[in-house]
Amino acid sequence: MAITTIGLDGDDTLWHSESHFAVTTTRLVDLLDPWVAHTDSAEQHLLDVERRNLGLLGYGVKAFTLSMVETAIEISDGEVPASAIREILDWGKELLDHPVDLLDEVAETVDGLMGRYQLVLITKGDLFHQESKLARSGLAEAFTAVEIVSEKDVATFERILGRHQVDGDEFVMVGNSMRSDVLPVLELGSRAVHVPYHVTWALEVAESDVEVPTLRSLAELPDLIDSWESQPSG
Amino acid sequence: MAITTIGLDGDDTLWHSESHFAVTTTRLVDLLDPWVAHTDSAEQHLLDVERRNLGLLGYGVKAFTLSMVETAIEISDGEVPASAIREILDWGKELLDHPVDLLDEVAETVDGLMGRYQLVLITKGDLFHQESKLARSGLAEAFTAVEIVSEKDVATFERILGRHQVDGDEFVMVGNSMRSDVLPVLELGSRAVHVPYHVTWALEVAESDVEVPTLRSLAELPDLIDSWESQPSG
Repeated sequence: MAITTIGLDGDDTLWHSESHFAVTTTRLVDLLDPWVAHTDSAEQHLLDVERRNLGLLGYGVKAFTLSMVETAIEISDGEVPASAIREILDWGKELLDHPVDLLDEVAETVDGLMGRYQLVLITKGDLFHQESKLARSGLAEAFTAVEIVSEKDVATFERILGRHQVDGDEFVMVGNSMRSDVLPVLELGSRAVHVPYHVTWALEVAESDVEVPTLRSLAELPDLIDSWESQPSG
Repeated sequence: MAITTIGLDGDDTLWHSESHFAVTTTRLVDLLDPWVAHTDSAEQHLLDVERRNLGLLGYGVKAFTLSMVETAIEISDGEVPASAIREILDWGKELLDHPVDLLDEVAETVDGLMGRYQLVLITKGDLFHQESKLARSGLAEAFTAVEIVSEKDVATFERILGRHQVDGDEFVMVGNSMRSDVLPVLELGSRAVHVPYHVTWALEVAESDVEVPTLRSLAELPDLIDSWESQPSG
């Protein structure tokens, strides 16, 4: 069956995100340098705190900011001054307020796809921030639906396809995360396309030897879909 | 036209929420007591910080926690120790992890309504936390749809009715907030029912002299809807 609907991830697929988190993490590492013991690493400690908090705080900048504050207090053994915590809060706000930088060729590609397919933005994280990013991205009009979800697993994609009455074999999901955008969609029996981003958050890294179409840029997607449709069977 | 679909708010309509925030605010006031000048009030200061942060942080416990930390730093003029900030972070986690306490008569009422109407949970705040509360509430099965939104305004309700193909005159919204659950729905031309909660967050208070059916308990809703349907015109 021909593809009718494309699911597109937002962060690190349409617009830059993880690189901003990485810059902020580096600032935190610098801030905490006076307190870091030789045996510890602030970056690793932050990651441990984020992992521990994931079930309660979920994804997104506010969760990240709270985990940074917690990390600072733990690493400094309670010695970090309030002024440094204030700085961390300000970094969180900068992240939330950061201009939305589209990845190269995204605007043109989405523009070319929107007439031919139903486009559904399927993105994870903070509802408020994701809506704000979409509004500022200039892409909002291109999407027939927007699904901001708390987790991307098989049940999530199943629910989304059901809600939009899309058959699994007319759907393809496109994103930078093997764990969130590719593996659950393959498990559901649909197609998925991986467009790696140059940084992957450690908690999104998935070990997998699944073979999946991998693109250097979203701009290569239309040709890939065309190639499927010129084959006798999907 | 007969009512087919009931929109139900979550926080302070189905389950207790604001009273937990109020308890936490009291703890913050106590914590900051040593630093509060006679001319200032920690509670008012927190509210100012929350109002200032609303456009960037949105609603929910994580936003509240970040605003509490910011308030503590400001009120103490940077003197608050990291141990106190740690305590504030822990209060935020307690709020997120708090058992879901249904309001009186909610379980029975929802149970009685679910066979007769489409029930849509329409709730504001943090996606992750709202989903978690719904899952723990025991009410998830009662809802034909769940809409967790970042803001409840006219456009939001219009979009929800459109998505579920519900006519405005077959819909009624029920909730504790005049500002979020009642006024925008009336503006859209649908019915709304106010079920006040004993505490209202200052940023949800709306001045209005609109006359709207007001119930002491959700348990009074079925009779109210029946009374509409026995009238010749809505």
